Amino acid sequence: MKTKLPVGVIGLGRMGQVYARHLATRVTQARIVAVADAMQERVQTFAAEFGIASWSTDYRDVLANKEIKAVFVISPTSTHREVVIAAAEAGKAIFCEKPVALTLADTDAMLTAIEKKGVMFQAGFMRRFDAGYVAAKKQIEAGVIGQPTTFKSIGRDPFCPDVAYADPHVSGGLILDMAIHDFDLGRWLMGAEVKRVHTEGGLLACPQLKAVGDIDNAVINMLFQGGALGNVEVSRNAFYGYDIRTEVLGTDGCLQIGYYRQTPLLLLNRQGISHDMVPYLMERFGEAYLAQTLDFVERVLEERPPAVGGFDARAALEIGLAATQSYAEARPVDLPLNSGL
Amino acid sequence: MKTKLPVGVIGLGRMGQVYARHLATRVTQARIVAVADAMQERVQTFAAEFGIASWSTDYRDVLANKEIKAVFVISPTSTHREVVIAAAEAGKAIFCEKPVALTLADTDAMLTAIEKKGVMFQAGFMRRFDAGYVAAKKQIEAGVIGQPTTFKSIGRDPFCPDVAYADPHVSGGLILDMAIHDFDLGRWLMGAEVKRVHTEGGLLACPQLKAVGDIDNAVINMLFQGGALGNVEVSRNAFYGYDIRTEVLGTDGCLQIGYYRQTPLLLLNRQGISHDMVPYLMERFGEAYLAQTLDFVERVLEERPPAVGGFDARAALEIGLAATQSYAEARPVDLPLNSGL
Amino acid sequence: MKTKLPVGVIGLGRMGQVYARHLATRVTQARIVAVADAMQERVQTFAAEFGIASWSTDYRDVLANKEIKAVFVISPTSTHREVVIAAAEAGKAIFCEKPVALTLADTDAMLTAIEKKGVMFQAGFMRRFDAGYVAAKKQIEAGVIGQPTTFKSIGRDPFCPDVAYADPHVSGGLILDMAIHDFDLGRWLMGAEVKRVHTEGGLLACPQLKAVGDIDNAVINMLFQGGALGNVEVSRNAFYGYDIRTEVLGTDGCLQIGYYRQTPLLLLNRQGISHDMVPYLMERFGEAYLAQTLDFVERVLEERPPAVGGFDARAALEIGLAATQSYAEARPVDLPLNSGL
Amino acid sequence: MKTKLPVGVIGLGRMGQVYARHLATRVTQARIVAVADAMQERVQTFAAEFGIASWSTDYRDVLANKEIKAVFVISPTSTHREVVIAAAEAGKAIFCEKPVALTLADTDAMLTAIEKKGVMFQAGFMRRFDAGYVAAKKQIEAGVIGQPTTFKSIGRDPFCPDVAYADPHVSGGLILDMAIHDFDLGRWLMGAEVKRVHTEGGLLACPQLKAVGDIDNAVINMLFQGGALGNVEVSRNAFYGYDIRTEVLGTDGCLQIGYYRQTPLLLLNRQGISHDMVPYLMERFGEAYLAQTLDFVERVLEERPPAVGGFDARAALEIGLAATQSYAEARPVDLPLNSGL
Repeated sequence: MKTKLPVGVIGLGRMGQVYARHLATRVTQARIVAVADAMQERVQTFAAEFGIASWSTDYRDVLANKEIKAVFVISPTSTHREVVIAAAEAGKAIFCEKPVALTLADTDAMLTAIEKKGVMFQAGFMRRFDAGYVAAKKQIEAGVIGQPTTFKSIGRDPFCPDVAYADPHVSGGLILDMAIHDFDLGRWLMGAEVKRVHTEGGLLACPQLKAVGDIDNAVINMLFQGGALGNVEVSRNAFYGYDIRTEVLGTDGCLQIGYYRQTPLLLLNRQGISHDMVPYLMERFGEAYLAQTLDFVERVLEERPPAVGGFDARAALEIGLAATQSYAEARPVDLPLNSGL
Repeated sequence: MKTKLPVGVIGLGRMGQVYARHLATRVTQARIVAVADAMQERVQTFAAEFGIASWSTDYRDVLANKEIKAVFVISPTSTHREVVIAAAEAGKAIFCEKPVALTLADTDAMLTAIEKKGVMFQAGFMRRFDAGYVAAKKQIEAGVIGQPTTFKSIGRDPFCPDVAYADPHVSGGLILDMAIHDFDLGRWLMGAEVKRVHTEGGLLACPQLKAVGDIDNAVINMLFQGGALGNVEVSRNAFYGYDIRTEVLGTDGCLQIGYYRQTPLLLLNRQGISHDMVPYLMERFGEAYLAQTLDFVERVLEERPPAVGGFDARAALEIGLAATQSYAEARPVDLPLNSGL
Repeated sequence: MKTKLPVGVIGLGRMGQVYARHLATRVTQARIVAVADAMQERVQTFAAEFGIASWSTDYRDVLANKEIKAVFVISPTSTHREVVIAAAEAGKAIFCEKPVALTLADTDAMLTAIEKKGVMFQAGFMRRFDAGYVAAKKQIEAGVIGQPTTFKSIGRDPFCPDVAYADPHVSGGLILDMAIHDFDLGRWLMGAEVKRVHTEGGLLACPQLKAVGDIDNAVINMLFQGGALGNVEVSRNAFYGYDIRTEVLGTDGCLQIGYYRQTPLLLLNRQGISHDMVPYLMERFGEAYLAQTLDFVERVLEERPPAVGGFDARAALEIGLAATQSYAEARPVDLPLNSGL
Repeated sequence: MKTKLPVGVIGLGRMGQVYARHLATRVTQARIVAVADAMQERVQTFAAEFGIASWSTDYRDVLANKEIKAVFVISPTSTHREVVIAAAEAGKAIFCEKPVALTLADTDAMLTAIEKKGVMFQAGFMRRFDAGYVAAKKQIEAGVIGQPTTFKSIGRDPFCPDVAYADPHVSGGLILDMAIHDFDLGRWLMGAEVKRVHTEGGLLACPQLKAVGDIDNAVINMLFQGGALGNVEVSRNAFYGYDIRTEVLGTDGCLQIGYYRQTPLLLLNRQGISHDMVPYLMERFGEAYLAQTLDFVERVLEERPPAVGGFDARAALEIGLAATQSYAEARPVDLPLNSGL
């Protein structure tokens, strides 16, 4: 039996449960040594279910545990700066769920601490571990579609978010909350940085978001370094299902990533031909979350660099901030941004 | 046997042949009385094949024919102003292939003549007669997808155009040449005028176009009056086939128009599952061209207003000009444009 | 202007109208000289609409017309024997709609007359002219799927037939009426004759057919000479649309012919993803009927042998008779049948 | 922490590993207490990997373990009779992988022992736990397609089997090995027993199977009690992938279960549009195996009857035997078979 990586999990909310359950049941190369969550009942219940001896409502107890080599930081975004810096100082390898932060200042503070201590840091962009995106990346690298010319991506959520969640002070606003995945994919699949963005947006389907000043739809033009083009669309009103599609057009072909049907069943009747639709995030990317966790654990065990490092996390954030600013100011915004923002 | 509409056809190039052959063989409510084309051999051959008594190398001979009630103007765009004005003055109902003109000044001159003489004028946007677009329009009007929030459209050609054809002085440039269809669809399907456009573009796959100063790819953000959003992508490098797709997202659903497979045959072998792709324009829109011609003939016979009038033709052109200007000036451009342009 | 083939059309019922209208408007290499139909109003109306000078309620008037080189026999199946033999004796090239006859005795009488007079005879199996089936045949011949091992075909009608029409004395019964197309395709695509059939069938969805003794569903196992396998399913209760699918599995791949969606429009809403379905025969095979007519006219003009000759028509009928007998006797039936049947 | 069901696993071959790994990692309601396999290295390695204290090369050691409440019998089919009878006599709940046995005599002996001891017995037909089949069953029961009239099912393997495995004395032959799944689905989805079968078959693509007397392709007509029809096709030469499709046509609609594309990626290039294909069993039914195991564990814990009991296992076997006999004797075979077979 090989040595298992001793890990800690900080944050057991909706996403924290996803990571922690994968670690507890399906990531056989890791072993959860300690968990922390601000809500005592939640952390105690989880520890009991999986027989984890050490639990706490204070993340510092996890970081203080010398046995632990790596931590999963899945706490609220607003806590990431403090937790990640403390984890770096404790010498832990760090997996941090997206968004790593909502400002470049926070991100830079975290990256400085990480660099200083030389710890491994991986940011959570799970789409890079989805079978479709992985295969697309391989085919692009193999030259199957020639030189990529245009990046198109659509991210549509099947419901209006809770107002409290959607508050831009919490979520960063529609674009940072949703399109940051597409911006990361754009950089990764196109192999180029973004030079300029232009956003049109509006509040068209979820009037309740007006109270917190967010929008629910946006289209974002992108110009990449080297001249390639892009457009990202995000929406909250795909009430028909979770509609995630990406397309890369090149000088010799095109790749389309995504799918619609969840259940392998087609109904043919007098109303026509119909099937169901992927309902939401976990049905679409559940396996990608698992693959991402497995990947991180392997990298730590094998002392390899992260799949998605701090530079990548910062770059996607920067595009998101620029696209948000473009909407606010109704003009194209050039990158890089002045990092004092 | 019902009275057939006596028509003339002006211009027998590639597209002129399409219209003229439909009129000669499949539009049983019309009868070609005379044809004109600058190339004598072409017009003579066509007249002989279909037994048309009157042919000429001068379009004025068609207009002078008193028997003719309606003319199809399918001559080069640069001749439209002169021919359409003359046709209006001759009192003919006019069908004019897109683009009606490359400038607002030309368009306005034509519309003034048309209005003065009170003749019927229909512009050629054949996609409005495609079964998919027709069904989409009906479903939107029936409220099936609620209030439209986002218009997305892709138009990709399967080859780089001839340099002579692509010369922006002839074609109006990539955006006017290709995206004008999408702009027309946007206005029609969204039921709203366009307020602002922003274009990113580039020459990425057809280096030969550099000689005439055209680009081969563009993405165009759109803001509609009322706040709805849009994005149009046009490209010359869909070397895999003719890729025409439109999507309208609404507050209660989404419609997607388009298809890929041409031949109803699927091959399953060790390389995977594969099928062919719509190769080009006529395979995709051949029946729409026919339906458009039938529609125009019926409208003239029944003295009904045009399906796509001069105002529509001008509006699509104006969006195209604004989007072209946005690329040139790297900034969003508001509509309406100063019509002195 | 090339010489057009002077043709006559005998029978202007539903299918006769299809052929005659194609000939009148879209088959530019042919010219209808005379038409006949037992119903005077029908034949007179058609002749008037297309300006055909010669019409009659007696098919013999068409055959007596010396100018006519070829006739389309689209009259009721029960008249085929008499008309085809008379046409052969008149020296005309003959196109005869399927089924050529309902008995081998009738077929053999016709084939004898045809052979004696040496006239060209083509049977109407329009699927052989459908783009999907044509492409499949080419790929099979090119070896793309290796050696064919299994032929599967489904033919489902979207409604129960009129009882009068379905009467086996008129239609030959479900299997002869519907599966004869699949039997022809089986022979053609597999490149082999059928050795044995076994049918299970029943009256499951159209109780009104009990009055005339027909069934509405059948599955037919096939064994080809050389050992390949097959199964054909026919049904009257595809109330969702016209469902025609064929599949050929080989030692190196598989081909699937057919499609479902009629209009290129997809609707995504809370009920799922849906589209329409091919409604019926002409939407699916309209172009194949045209292609078949063009093909026959060209073959007559060029004095080439028929695409589907009398031997093919007889062979498909024989399989249909054997499959019908198999159902009646609840046992496999070997081919060839005793032709005294 | 809820009480976990203490289970034993007998047989750790390819399929045994699937069940045992699911039980060890993903079935949180069960706990493996002991494992047995004839190959010592295999059972020892597995026990070590998952920290299972008790392992043996003799299945009787598992049955003798008083703590164990349920056993998974995944040993070779030839051992099922002995192991299942012994397990029943030991009072264990029994999950037995398909095929439960190759003869009715063996099955009846097992069922007698099970009945005598009153133990719970579930047979492994994992397709009943696949999301597509589950949804289809629910829709049929809800009357969505009316009264089922026709059952169609295709099972195609992507390679010729090992000769040793395919030996009919080991596997039962092509039909028992593959079509037994379809026979089970037919009974379940149609809600009716089978009355008669007729098989055509042949050795068409895997000549090496001649040595053991097996065939590689078959088509099987089915007549259900009540008159509904069916056809099952099985093949070894779907070298393009694992092609599993089922279809139920009813008096008011049709359901199609299955899918082709494994990776959510579409490639569009000059060769056409293409995607990959489900490669094999575990990619298609991996989650169904897990769901089946979870279901069995829950049923035992909750003392509910099995999802697929001994009667169902026997019925599917009987259809398979009849279909095999039909091929051998080239005639339809009626059910029930004389159980002395």
